[in-house]
Amino acid sequence: MKAIVKAAAGQGLVVRDVPKPACGPADVLIKVHHAGVCGTDLHIADWDEWAQGRIKPPLVLGHEFAGEIVEVGADARGEFETGQLVTAEGHIVCGHCLQCRTGNGHICAKTRIIGVDRAGAFTEFIAMPAGNVMRLDGIPTEIGAIMDPMGNAFHTVLTAEIPGSVVLVLGCGPIGCFAVGIARAAGAKAVVAVDVNPKRLALAATMGATKALQPGPEVRQAVMELSEGNGADVVCEMSGAVSALHDAFALVRNGGRVQLLGIPKGDIPVNWATEIIFKGITIYGVIGRKMYETWNQMQRFLRSGVFDPRPVITHRFPLERIDDALAAIRSGDAGKVIIEIGH
Amino acid sequence: MKAIVKAAAGQGLVVRDVPKPACGPADVLIKVHHAGVCGTDLHIADWDEWAQGRIKPPLVLGHEFAGEIVEVGADARGEFETGQLVTAEGHIVCGHCLQCRTGNGHICAKTRIIGVDRAGAFTEFIAMPAGNVMRLDGIPTEIGAIMDPMGNAFHTVLTAEIPGSVVLVLGCGPIGCFAVGIARAAGAKAVVAVDVNPKRLALAATMGATKALQPGPEVRQAVMELSEGNGADVVCEMSGAVSALHDAFALVRNGGRVQLLGIPKGDIPVNWATEIIFKGITIYGVIGRKMYETWNQMQRFLRSGVFDPRPVITHRFPLERIDDALAAIRSGDAGKVIIEIGH
Amino acid sequence: MKAIVKAAAGQGLVVRDVPKPACGPADVLIKVHHAGVCGTDLHIADWDEWAQGRIKPPLVLGHEFAGEIVEVGADARGEFETGQLVTAEGHIVCGHCLQCRTGNGHICAKTRIIGVDRAGAFTEFIAMPAGNVMRLDGIPTEIGAIMDPMGNAFHTVLTAEIPGSVVLVLGCGPIGCFAVGIARAAGAKAVVAVDVNPKRLALAATMGATKALQPGPEVRQAVMELSEGNGADVVCEMSGAVSALHDAFALVRNGGRVQLLGIPKGDIPVNWATEIIFKGITIYGVIGRKMYETWNQMQRFLRSGVFDPRPVITHRFPLERIDDALAAIRSGDAGKVIIEIGH
Amino acid sequence: MKAIVKAAAGQGLVVRDVPKPACGPADVLIKVHHAGVCGTDLHIADWDEWAQGRIKPPLVLGHEFAGEIVEVGADARGEFETGQLVTAEGHIVCGHCLQCRTGNGHICAKTRIIGVDRAGAFTEFIAMPAGNVMRLDGIPTEIGAIMDPMGNAFHTVLTAEIPGSVVLVLGCGPIGCFAVGIARAAGAKAVVAVDVNPKRLALAATMGATKALQPGPEVRQAVMELSEGNGADVVCEMSGAVSALHDAFALVRNGGRVQLLGIPKGDIPVNWATEIIFKGITIYGVIGRKMYETWNQMQRFLRSGVFDPRPVITHRFPLERIDDALAAIRSGDAGKVIIEIGH
Repeated sequence: MKAIVKAAAGQGLVVRDVPKPACGPADVLIKVHHAGVCGTDLHIADWDEWAQGRIKPPLVLGHEFAGEIVEVGADARGEFETGQLVTAEGHIVCGHCLQCRTGNGHICAKTRIIGVDRAGAFTEFIAMPAGNVMRLDGIPTEIGAIMDPMGNAFHTVLTAEIPGSVVLVLGCGPIGCFAVGIARAAGAKAVVAVDVNPKRLALAATMGATKALQPGPEVRQAVMELSEGNGADVVCEMSGAVSALHDAFALVRNGGRVQLLGIPKGDIPVNWATEIIFKGITIYGVIGRKMYETWNQMQRFLRSGVFDPRPVITHRFPLERIDDALAAIRSGDAGKVIIEIGH
Repeated sequence: MKAIVKAAAGQGLVVRDVPKPACGPADVLIKVHHAGVCGTDLHIADWDEWAQGRIKPPLVLGHEFAGEIVEVGADARGEFETGQLVTAEGHIVCGHCLQCRTGNGHICAKTRIIGVDRAGAFTEFIAMPAGNVMRLDGIPTEIGAIMDPMGNAFHTVLTAEIPGSVVLVLGCGPIGCFAVGIARAAGAKAVVAVDVNPKRLALAATMGATKALQPGPEVRQAVMELSEGNGADVVCEMSGAVSALHDAFALVRNGGRVQLLGIPKGDIPVNWATEIIFKGITIYGVIGRKMYETWNQMQRFLRSGVFDPRPVITHRFPLERIDDALAAIRSGDAGKVIIEIGH
Repeated sequence: MKAIVKAAAGQGLVVRDVPKPACGPADVLIKVHHAGVCGTDLHIADWDEWAQGRIKPPLVLGHEFAGEIVEVGADARGEFETGQLVTAEGHIVCGHCLQCRTGNGHICAKTRIIGVDRAGAFTEFIAMPAGNVMRLDGIPTEIGAIMDPMGNAFHTVLTAEIPGSVVLVLGCGPIGCFAVGIARAAGAKAVVAVDVNPKRLALAATMGATKALQPGPEVRQAVMELSEGNGADVVCEMSGAVSALHDAFALVRNGGRVQLLGIPKGDIPVNWATEIIFKGITIYGVIGRKMYETWNQMQRFLRSGVFDPRPVITHRFPLERIDDALAAIRSGDAGKVIIEIGH
Repeated sequence: MKAIVKAAAGQGLVVRDVPKPACGPADVLIKVHHAGVCGTDLHIADWDEWAQGRIKPPLVLGHEFAGEIVEVGADARGEFETGQLVTAEGHIVCGHCLQCRTGNGHICAKTRIIGVDRAGAFTEFIAMPAGNVMRLDGIPTEIGAIMDPMGNAFHTVLTAEIPGSVVLVLGCGPIGCFAVGIARAAGAKAVVAVDVNPKRLALAATMGATKALQPGPEVRQAVMELSEGNGADVVCEMSGAVSALHDAFALVRNGGRVQLLGIPKGDIPVNWATEIIFKGITIYGVIGRKMYETWNQMQRFLRSGVFDPRPVITHRFPLERIDDALAAIRSGDAGKVIIEIGH
């Protein structure tokens, strides 16, 4: 079967044939319909420092996908059947540690990620442990294919108290744009979205941002006006930019909450006393999706229609055009980029 | 000044002149513009058992109101000024007990309620402790006048986890109708509203109920369908009816939450094992409004426009027509009934 | 192998030989060292109404036990090995429903309980799904054998906020006595324990009760004195008695929390307005143990020695003397009764 | 009356006479018995950068104290009477802002601190707003005098989930030593205390630390051993040291909680991705005491005797010997230093 592969250490990806995976007794074999392309895939293609330390080529990339069950392992038969449309949590966890046994599998120290630590989904078929598989039950596979990054946004937004809150979203990439829409659906009083890129701001506005602004004094002005001078109740930092980190602390209200999802590079100094301690704030590091509370919330929002992520999808490419897909992301203008595979 | 007065033990209310209250040093004197009529006022008019035990005539009724500040006591001067439009929390609490000192004034054992334990707001002027007064800042006084019962609804709904939840509202009087709208604004996946009265159901539908149904098997069917067979995540019991109490326990999902606001009469038997314990549910008794977290949430929902309570207001009367106002409530068809006084 | 069996519909239990169970691929086969006898076993022996509706004889009883692994199924090999001392969660849940997938397996609607819905642990060997098995790692099997009921007590106590609280425990059977000790270990300001039986009160005092009292006016006096007139912050109702239910509501402070573990029989009337709603309290129905948060907490309390349950164990019998064990429970004087089997 | 005064910009403090304060209508006048000396007083004496920016001499220092009521303002008469022993929250807040009205006065933006922004307690009499005053009701004034810093420790410890947790306390000054004792009283499984100073470590051991260690590899070893390899559930950072900040993030378990009370100087770089985000941790900035939830908790722990802070008091001086008191703190060997004034 055809696959997008990191063939060897060094720049670039190739499309080539790989063997179809076997379906183990505890697995489900899925024919991939759609897959999402992520910044992580770009890091692997570009073979940056992080990728050099983590990736062992050759590797099939891709950790966001949805498709149709074509085979069910013996142990998973009561639970799934062929023909069902599904997506899957791409973090495969140990299931036995303290974190896994208390509903916190997202921070299992033994997490292995598909498309990073084992074969991924940018291909025609993928075998997944049944425990990671989620039925779509009416959610289209195109949306199913982006539930992994959307789940990051749900995790970020819904672990804060949103109804009635003023929410500041820093960084309007796809996950930031999802966050804007989720915060509005969950009853935010107002959402201020910030990005340097006007196309992304337009997308954030489409997703319901009360104000979509480039960084600058207007951001403070908007936050203060909407919050009656208090500052944002919740800040979702989704850019990883140094300036955004400082903005997060400067614009959150005393006693507010800063959710950190964006990944800053290297060491970043902050004034812990004035930016954090004296303000009495709470900071939460967001990694992955809560297993499986976040998935449950996400299915509810999607099935009921209170949240529609589709405007965030801006590009669709066939598997062969992965380089064009990566170029779209590199441009900074893209929302979510989808690979159409086997539907 | 003119006032609606419980003049003596026995049936009925009278409209008569009473002295204008003085403004103490810690008080604010308010010219009343609008006041809301509540079921409690009906109990006092009808002189039922509860009223006979609690009310000491003569008493000016009315605990829901909004108006304009016309005098500010010496100690409240930094905080308020004449001309400001305001409403007020009608529960006057001790301020010193454990509950008051930890943000739980709504359960202060020394609570005294205006229009019940001391002179109320169905009149031209009322003096209120400054600490109970809230600026409207753009919220119309007609809405300000019903923030007391609306606050009961906010307290009921927002002490449960609403985003993504299936919410069942039992009883569609004014507070139930507010609850429907608040749950939708706060991101409920779906709201099922139940009442025997079709006019109230129409009001609940206007406020955003996904389904508005009379009691019967359709209620279970709707809840189960919308919750994928789990049951309601949150039930708001706002009727006080015996059958509704059982429905609440029957239709909440295992591990769900039942918020009790409606006041059942007398002793009601339930099967604690099967209705409550084996289901692992949480029950919360709702009284008043959290001081002042609920007020803060309410102001945010109202000022941002994510929630509009106006469709619930169905009747307006001048002060002299209090009997017509009570009749409207007695009919069972009314939403919120407003007394227009001095605007 | 020898087992305690409910052989047929009707009174009584028999000790007889049953086949040794096979160890499935996802199972662990355990040689039972100790087992705990529970009120549930008494109901089954006595063939009461509940037992008649639920139990399908013939059935090996027993749902509380600990022992040594003697065989590990193929799929559980990385996780367990022979020779390890273990106990197990006796509720076998579906693993796929909303509740199971969000850390709330204790309220899975498909729960099957060993010794109730499938073969139990009052015998020499039991096969358990590996996912239910917990390593003892230093906890003696005698204590391991009572971690099921002790887990009920942990679940009851630690889902309330205990540090600094005044806790009232109603009912000092084994689970009530555990609750007393857990509340003290978790920093309760004071624990008032109530039971009609002086032997049980003595046990509660041994476990650290500040006051151990028979029902009567002294209970209110003690609670009010210790709470500076507020009432108990947390009430753990562990008796199922009608009068205790009313005491729980009467003695909890406004805004406090009532944890219901005791199983009242039939329908019990309460005044929902004055006993619950006007007090603004929260009620929580406790069923089973949180999977596996409760087990994790319990292991920590036991391994660190901050809580020692051993004084609660009052009787030990060999398997053949099950009738004596049941008689000890029937007497009302027993703490925890243990069956010594294969150590 | 005699007072310890910052007389002018520049180094040092003087003892001199100042006028006795008047008791306003909303105030209580207190004869000071004991006062606590704090690191803040040292900063003011030394006239460091922070002090230069904040303090307006002449100023009576001292924000920790307890004593006896000698006069009650007209408006506070129902609540207090002369002869009562009391302490007081030294943060005087606006009472009207969002934070104050929702039980979060500790982060009121208009906070004014006694001994910093207005006249303090290192003197014979102090007038305090009645709302800030707390009755001791049996707690000795020597302990009452240190309830301010002890409250910081209660706030730090009890906003994390302590029962059954492994707690790491970094920095064993007086507040760190209080934190050790509070964590033990609240049911911590184990407390590891870290400081460079052996005298402080001895004090931490006296307060109940499971291990009291100097910084080094033994700390990680102890934490990992006590937590079965997971890391600390809760870290209380109470030193402000750069290395301790990194230790906090390195030794907290995935999904754990870091409470920051120590005040680091200037900007400190950390790797936000690996130290915080990928670990999925929560960080909480601790400032002051929750008004008045923390005070309520503290009174309960102290009155019930589950926590005894007295071993932390190592030095007592008369008011005239303030320089000796400061020298004791400067030595790094002191626990809590008390000024004995008027008892």
